[in-house]
Amino acid sequence: MSQPDRAIEPLGGETVYECSQFSVRVERFRHADGEVVTREMVRRMDAAAIVAYDDEHVWLVRQPREALGEYTLEIPAGKLDVEGESPLQTAKRELAEEIGRDAEDWEEVRAYYPSSGYSDELVHIFAATELRENPDIDPDPGERIEIVPWPLSDLDAALAATNDAKTIIGLQWLRATRC
Amino acid sequence: MSQPDRAIEPLGGETVYECSQFSVRVERFRHADGEVVTREMVRRMDAAAIVAYDDEHVWLVRQPREALGEYTLEIPAGKLDVEGESPLQTAKRELAEEIGRDAEDWEEVRAYYPSSGYSDELVHIFAATELRENPDIDPDPGERIEIVPWPLSDLDAALAATNDAKTIIGLQWLRATRC
Repeated sequence: MSQPDRAIEPLGGETVYECSQFSVRVERFRHADGEVVTREMVRRMDAAAIVAYDDEHVWLVRQPREALGEYTLEIPAGKLDVEGESPLQTAKRELAEEIGRDAEDWEEVRAYYPSSGYSDELVHIFAATELRENPDIDPDPGERIEIVPWPLSDLDAALAATNDAKTIIGLQWLRATRC
Repeated sequence: MSQPDRAIEPLGGETVYECSQFSVRVERFRHADGEVVTREMVRRMDAAAIVAYDDEHVWLVRQPREALGEYTLEIPAGKLDVEGESPLQTAKRELAEEIGRDAEDWEEVRAYYPSSGYSDELVHIFAATELRENPDIDPDPGERIEIVPWPLSDLDAALAATNDAKTIIGLQWLRATRC
């Protein structure tokens, strides 16, 4: 059986809403069979997230997520919102800002699309080990972020205590690498 | 140390954009310390996704994701867009529509928020086993969906072949339950 033609040709579109967090685009695409489709999409900056762990703990944060009406347990993360910064550089900056630590060893775990159906946002997950406190950095208290060192021996409980995609993907990966 | 007050009080807001896939809301919230914050959010229907597997295969689909400009490998899924339908009922309907199969055994795996930072969309993941073909249902060819039975013995390759959040979470779960 021959491989079907899977070309998706972008035909352009327009921005119909824009704010600091994302923009909404209406775009058209032509499929290989000639059909033209219109898609409403959320465009947003990519992000980096960090599974930071030492011999005893994985370092999580608890922070307000107003969209959900609750405080959620998550791995540290942030948007790639500094011009010219690579995903790894963002990860290093966010780890320092959110939990006040640097890491000597960094490993790319994987990337994922949170919402393939309507957004091209890509989240890069890194593992950070050989952690050490960075005395020059005060974890940002203005963001209401609580640092939560979670026992590595109880990753199942952390997975039960969160519904956040990046955190689930990161902790499932960590559990698999440790078993 | 006493538990901090983590109340997040919704103060209302307005819809600033609306389409068939989602709406954009600007909403205000009051934190426990009195500070009022404004958040731009994407509101969208929840969804259900299915890790359907038998003794040999996990049943995946390959479909066009125009937002990404590519065809992606995913577990079957769909929005809760039928009035009154529960997440499990949606999962059963989508499994039939996308791969033409019913399942006797259903298990709730977990739910997750794809984008906690700006959306309250929740995706419910189910495991479906004891599969059988449903002769009454033609998997929908109009959606350009290709059915991909993936060998259970090679879940790592499936995880390497996708960047889709629900698929990663579902397949990492499946790999953990089988090891």
